[in-house]
Amino acid sequence: MQVNIIIVKDMVQLDIAGPFEVLARVPGWRIDLVAATLDPVRTDRGLTILPTQTRASAKPSDMLVIPGGTGIDDAMLDADWVDYAAREIESARYVFGICTGSLLIAATGALSGRRAGGHWQARDLLERFGVTPSHERMTVDGKFYTSGGVTSGIDMALRVVADVAGEETARRIQLAIEYDPAPPFPGGTPQTSPRTIVDAVLEQSHMRRAAREAKVNEAAARLKARR
Amino acid sequence: MQVNIIIVKDMVQLDIAGPFEVLARVPGWRIDLVAATLDPVRTDRGLTILPTQTRASAKPSDMLVIPGGTGIDDAMLDADWVDYAAREIESARYVFGICTGSLLIAATGALSGRRAGGHWQARDLLERFGVTPSHERMTVDGKFYTSGGVTSGIDMALRVVADVAGEETARRIQLAIEYDPAPPFPGGTPQTSPRTIVDAVLEQSHMRRAAREAKVNEAAARLKARR
Repeated sequence: MQVNIIIVKDMVQLDIAGPFEVLARVPGWRIDLVAATLDPVRTDRGLTILPTQTRASAKPSDMLVIPGGTGIDDAMLDADWVDYAAREIESARYVFGICTGSLLIAATGALSGRRAGGHWQARDLLERFGVTPSHERMTVDGKFYTSGGVTSGIDMALRVVADVAGEETARRIQLAIEYDPAPPFPGGTPQTSPRTIVDAVLEQSHMRRAAREAKVNEAAARLKARR
Repeated sequence: MQVNIIIVKDMVQLDIAGPFEVLARVPGWRIDLVAATLDPVRTDRGLTILPTQTRASAKPSDMLVIPGGTGIDDAMLDADWVDYAAREIESARYVFGICTGSLLIAATGALSGRRAGGHWQARDLLERFGVTPSHERMTVDGKFYTSGGVTSGIDMALRVVADVAGEETARRIQLAIEYDPAPPFPGGTPQTSPRTIVDAVLEQSHMRRAAREAKVNEAAARLKARR
């Protein structure tokens, strides 16, 4: 199983790291971090990761993994990334989007008419690509596995491993990474967080949301023009 | 708040990435990844990270963070790392160990007579340094915050932020990273996993455990000799 994880500048590093930790522990799976070049890639809060392959050198994906973050908004408008994603999605056996990674999958047109999830602040934007937004933490539609925001990539990675390599393997990994989560207080979704917390997070990300929405609209217009 | 995260070769990258994602989102906190040199650091399953500071260039730690993995076993026997950790632990206001990171804290002698946690397969080894092993997912003793294995670093990072920057800030971060975890099946601890899974994980890591135990014994002997 060749697993290719797309990495671009300004991704959320935990969108990459959570699924990486789970997928890289499956015996026999080879994981590559695929970037435009082999230069170091800076994630949105300053942690910098080295790619292991470029788009040109990467092996064909049995599984394509697309993490999220504001960098993905730019990738939706980068023809090289859209072309690469479209080609790999076409031939991959599994496609796994984390957080806003589902927006890039959607921008290729591959999710049109399907259901997909994403970060709670962005998943409504999937509709612009003709995708039905799912409000669940894990959504599976055909070969497409899409998760909610950031940390939900860990839950979904275990689901992917269970479906592809068997539940026994997934449960061994869950135990090895001691994944019996216990957040110190309730929260983590708009439904489980106090209204004041939800409002504060929306307020903090107001500008980022507006910028994302504009890029999604442009990517959706380009998709329409290609059809 | 200056947060310094120690990174060495062959760490578990999610031990770094989970807490990084939480701590880096606190307004005003500056996070550095501190290594022996500025060369890229390869984690145990091939994801490679760039340090932002060396031990020599790093600012004094208000908070020192020590992730785990087999690389920490070697750091316990590296006088430069033990000296750096001892000095920073002495002056830091908070010390946060994830997974087997608590072994390096213990190897400096700073935890003697205290309680601390660690990965379920390694925490009994804390006793060799005169530390009482905690079997809880999060353990706080004075300024020392220690978590269980790998993913428990996310829970503990939220606890650390709540205690230091306030629960409001921690809950905003929890919502922003959509941390309402839902593992697809129960497990994650020896108590919640079937016996066959526990036995398989122990069998897989038998050699690593033996190597770690030998290094802990040597580090404990060195600590005794220094006293």
